Amino acid sequence: MSVKRNSTIRVRLAQMDVVPGRPADNTETMLKAVAEARRDGVALLVFPEMSIPGYLIGDAWEREAFLRECEACGQAIREASDRIVVVFGNVGLDWDKHNEDGRVRKYNACFVAEDRRFMGPGNGPYAFVPKTLLPNYREFDDSRYFYDTRRLAEERGVPLGSLLKPVETRNLSLACVLCEDAWDADYAVSPLAVLADQSFDLAVNISCSPFTVNKNGKRNRVFSAQAERLRRPLIYVNTVGIQNNGKTVYTFDGSSCIYDGLGHQVRLQPAFEPGCLTLDVPLNGALFGDPIDLREDGVAEIDQALVYGTRRFMEQCGVNRVTVGASGGIDSAVVAALYRRILGPDQVLLVNMPSRFNSGATIALARQLAENLECLYAEVPIEDSVRLTVRQLGDLIVSDVAGRWPQRLCLSESMLENVQARDRSSRVLAAVSCAFGGVFTCNANKAEATVGYTTLYGDLGGYLANIADLWKGEVYALGRYMNDTSFGRPVIPGGCFTVTPSAELSSAQNVDEGKGDPLIYPYHDCLFRHWVEPWQRSTPEEILDWYVAGTLERNLGYAGQVAGHFSTARAFVADLERWWNLYQGLGVAKRIQAPPILAVKRRAFGFDHRESQMGAWYSRRYQELKLALLGAAS
Amino acid sequence: MSVKRNSTIRVRLAQMDVVPGRPADNTETMLKAVAEARRDGVALLVFPEMSIPGYLIGDAWEREAFLRECEACGQAIREASDRIVVVFGNVGLDWDKHNEDGRVRKYNACFVAEDRRFMGPGNGPYAFVPKTLLPNYREFDDSRYFYDTRRLAEERGVPLGSLLKPVETRNLSLACVLCEDAWDADYAVSPLAVLADQSFDLAVNISCSPFTVNKNGKRNRVFSAQAERLRRPLIYVNTVGIQNNGKTVYTFDGSSCIYDGLGHQVRLQPAFEPGCLTLDVPLNGALFGDPIDLREDGVAEIDQALVYGTRRFMEQCGVNRVTVGASGGIDSAVVAALYRRILGPDQVLLVNMPSRFNSGATIALARQLAENLECLYAEVPIEDSVRLTVRQLGDLIVSDVAGRWPQRLCLSESMLENVQARDRSSRVLAAVSCAFGGVFTCNANKAEATVGYTTLYGDLGGYLANIADLWKGEVYALGRYMNDTSFGRPVIPGGCFTVTPSAELSSAQNVDEGKGDPLIYPYHDCLFRHWVEPWQRSTPEEILDWYVAGTLERNLGYAGQVAGHFSTARAFVADLERWWNLYQGLGVAKRIQAPPILAVKRRAFGFDHRESQMGAWYSRRYQELKLALLGAAS
Repeated sequence: MSVKRNSTIRVRLAQMDVVPGRPADNTETMLKAVAEARRDGVALLVFPEMSIPGYLIGDAWEREAFLRECEACGQAIREASDRIVVVFGNVGLDWDKHNEDGRVRKYNACFVAEDRRFMGPGNGPYAFVPKTLLPNYREFDDSRYFYDTRRLAEERGVPLGSLLKPVETRNLSLACVLCEDAWDADYAVSPLAVLADQSFDLAVNISCSPFTVNKNGKRNRVFSAQAERLRRPLIYVNTVGIQNNGKTVYTFDGSSCIYDGLGHQVRLQPAFEPGCLTLDVPLNGALFGDPIDLREDGVAEIDQALVYGTRRFMEQCGVNRVTVGASGGIDSAVVAALYRRILGPDQVLLVNMPSRFNSGATIALARQLAENLECLYAEVPIEDSVRLTVRQLGDLIVSDVAGRWPQRLCLSESMLENVQARDRSSRVLAAVSCAFGGVFTCNANKAEATVGYTTLYGDLGGYLANIADLWKGEVYALGRYMNDTSFGRPVIPGGCFTVTPSAELSSAQNVDEGKGDPLIYPYHDCLFRHWVEPWQRSTPEEILDWYVAGTLERNLGYAGQVAGHFSTARAFVADLERWWNLYQGLGVAKRIQAPPILAVKRRAFGFDHRESQMGAWYSRRYQELKLALLGAAS
Repeated sequence: MSVKRNSTIRVRLAQMDVVPGRPADNTETMLKAVAEARRDGVALLVFPEMSIPGYLIGDAWEREAFLRECEACGQAIREASDRIVVVFGNVGLDWDKHNEDGRVRKYNACFVAEDRRFMGPGNGPYAFVPKTLLPNYREFDDSRYFYDTRRLAEERGVPLGSLLKPVETRNLSLACVLCEDAWDADYAVSPLAVLADQSFDLAVNISCSPFTVNKNGKRNRVFSAQAERLRRPLIYVNTVGIQNNGKTVYTFDGSSCIYDGLGHQVRLQPAFEPGCLTLDVPLNGALFGDPIDLREDGVAEIDQALVYGTRRFMEQCGVNRVTVGASGGIDSAVVAALYRRILGPDQVLLVNMPSRFNSGATIALARQLAENLECLYAEVPIEDSVRLTVRQLGDLIVSDVAGRWPQRLCLSESMLENVQARDRSSRVLAAVSCAFGGVFTCNANKAEATVGYTTLYGDLGGYLANIADLWKGEVYALGRYMNDTSFGRPVIPGGCFTVTPSAELSSAQNVDEGKGDPLIYPYHDCLFRHWVEPWQRSTPEEILDWYVAGTLERNLGYAGQVAGHFSTARAFVADLERWWNLYQGLGVAKRIQAPPILAVKRRAFGFDHRESQMGAWYSRRYQELKLALLGAAS
């Protein structure tokens, strides 16, 4: 193993746009990149994790035809590796063994090819490096599909360390790991700690790591510390593109980068852009380049991720025309503005659908929004249709065929609210969007999604819910950011920011009288966030604990005063239980039938927030706290 | 450890109805059972796996308030264990350690309590038995939430075998394992093989094992072999009730039983019934009881599971009135008949919603069905509403506010089909079912669900899809079974079995002319089943391979002749690709927004068939096969 301590090596990070489930297409992209790299004198070309098959592909891992094709694609890359070291991700197969589900043995693997040969680590059984740490939390399901180095050591009866060795190429010794292998804080074993004590030139981490806001700061701290521990350069190559788990759509920002042996991030690829980063890396441990100052800016990142993810999802679905139900409120305004960033003026259609409960003010705001965005606009009143439904069903008498058990059905006020919401989405938007040649959007935000403050087959309908991972306050912030920065002019009318949030489905929700939704923003944003987003999710027990201790505002990060909203403890508890019941009750039922959600944060609804329909649970301790606070009458 | 080889021990299997997410309620049930058992002289009382918290509860495992309550409930059982050995399932907590996701350390654990003490296995670190084999396939997510004995051995640097020991009570030595621990065929380690070589009196397997049709035959073979290997009695205690993973609802049949040391199943609890089985089990290895002949009968099991699961799901949702859109076809007829088994005549409302495309024959069948079922019936025509929509939207001209980019929208034939389907569900059924005081059903079958032959917000709507795990042929079989056996009279009219399956949404689907759905039953049933249900799912590559080899019918288990449906290879391939594109394309999008599905078989859609929206994939080899078959013109 001739390690050239006094030379540099030309390294290229291929921040590749991986198309999930399309091994042949990805391989074509990679083969071109290999040829170019060789021409450019690159010695080491690195692709991301699972660059051939894609990563979030669900149970497609169970199709042997797919696995065989992935394997053949990997062989094509191997055969193209004359005079260059190519590192890439693929499924590693052992057709003679099986996984613990009885299916063929699969590894999430890092392949190293050079001169038409694959090289594995040290004296291991495979000509690839299996992933050691398999994430099995949040949206990750690695251990559902893959065997890992730890199981392999157990099966072979050898110490794990004996399988964690560098890969020796002709001129280079590479410590290769995959994604989670570097995020080792909570694991009993650390692959990089084992490798750190061995002799190698460069460390490579290939990843397929979804974007979430502010994640790169954490990643930078983790990888910087790893590079420092390794005392050698560390190369991080991540995917761009989108991949999904059905209910939840993830963007991948790439942000591939290089760390020197002191832990400085010295090169960084732009986020969300496929492309290559090439650098002559000194192998003698010398410093190279200048450390990069990583800046995080939540709303700008969210703006970028939403536009990117929405555009890519549309491309994937073959959609290029979008209909947005525009109510005059902030949610639909932000959604419309996002689409106008992606589509031309004649590809975005805003439809305002007033009933007798809609204010002239919100109708005017919707129209103004369309004017500002220079997109298509139509007003489609729903009053006639709703009246027909009320006439037909409002006094329907049902009985058995012989006339027994006659009963008159009656549509209550709240039923009529839902009739309107369904009329808008399932009748008007569904038909109009088809006739317009595209799809319609779901404009629900995360607060509404949490408590199911939406109508099933009504405003919860749509092909994609692209702001459903944003709390109401974040929707406002994004709207302001788009006006100030993305568009640089107030395309979203000021009135959308100031009008009372309201569904406008009854006279009790009359915005002209300042009446609207029962949600108290931003208090409920803060409350719901604590149920949904923290690593340890809170329940009414913790909330009541904090309320009693007088620390609720501080614990929730709420700038206002809870006492300003609820004059008595009884009112506070009633509100708490009202929304908790909805979050855990109808909210779950509605989320099961909700559109896919574009994730931009930790714990988006769907695959990162797995739910069972069980109804609302209150702990015994909550009941005791409540009794102590309100007395037996509660 | 005084093992009384010449005595018997009174054992009680508590086949308990576990309510998921309700530890206090389950504990109350258990405390009553403990008191009764002591009174009845029972020495060993065994509850199922996770009998305190429930099992399929999603990410509720992330709530520490919930974990604390589960722990307190376990202590309450311990304190009630005077003069009796109580075995039960609960989450085992180690608050000083963490899981690999950074959250508090959790085990899926078997607890053994006696005289107010918990006893763990041998010299292990815990006073409970952790599960060793964590299933992480199909609907199971154990390794998402729990640490296991294998990781524990790795962490402690000890051989796994040192942690797999019997639990010693005052008079009894128990080999305790949990569910999957006995299903060890595909694992590198076998807990029962390790235990078999040690000294103990009885083996206990506590389970929370969902029902699927014909599963008990497999379970019987597995457990019989385990008992034979152990050469000692084996007690299997399983839960009854329902639990769900959001999209997929599972029934639990219990079927708890006892095996003697020769592997004979000698006692079996009735399926789907909570209750206790008590037996004096000889500890000297003597035979006891007579072996039971387990009979499997698919359609009877499915009938039982669907009625049970539907009834329990309704109870859980607090629903006691159901509206069924009754088309006159077999699917809605079977659904209506299932509900009539559960609800009274005035709690089931059939609604027929004809448009101008509906045949008098199917309307009469719907009415006849209601008459036979003696339930409520209403006819709600949708013609006026559809006409209003066509009038309002059919010629809508949209433009921007300044009048630019004007375009006339046009509702095509197929759009009009969907307008009708949505009008029925989102307008009529949604409102009528609310006014009637309940919910409406989704009547889609598995063939329709596979290829998305349903309208979103139309016939795919509903609170539960209870026959969506049945292929069309199975729906017919269930209908016949209900007529012949469950009702013992032809409540489902003969015409429902003979009418051409049709959505009746256009003149091209006129059943009076024998026209209807484009699906060819049972060929497409057989084809789709091979894409969805086998352990190794097939793709068009395998299908075309079989077609070329002339083995398609045999491989699909199709009794007919494929050549009878497709006169040319080109027609066969066009049909194959049409449905594969839908299965992998729009079908996925629709399933994401589909109602919960009641699972009765392996690989129900939802949590047991995880999907990504990626569009249809065809392998290179498929393309080559197709080229060879059809020539370059394809």
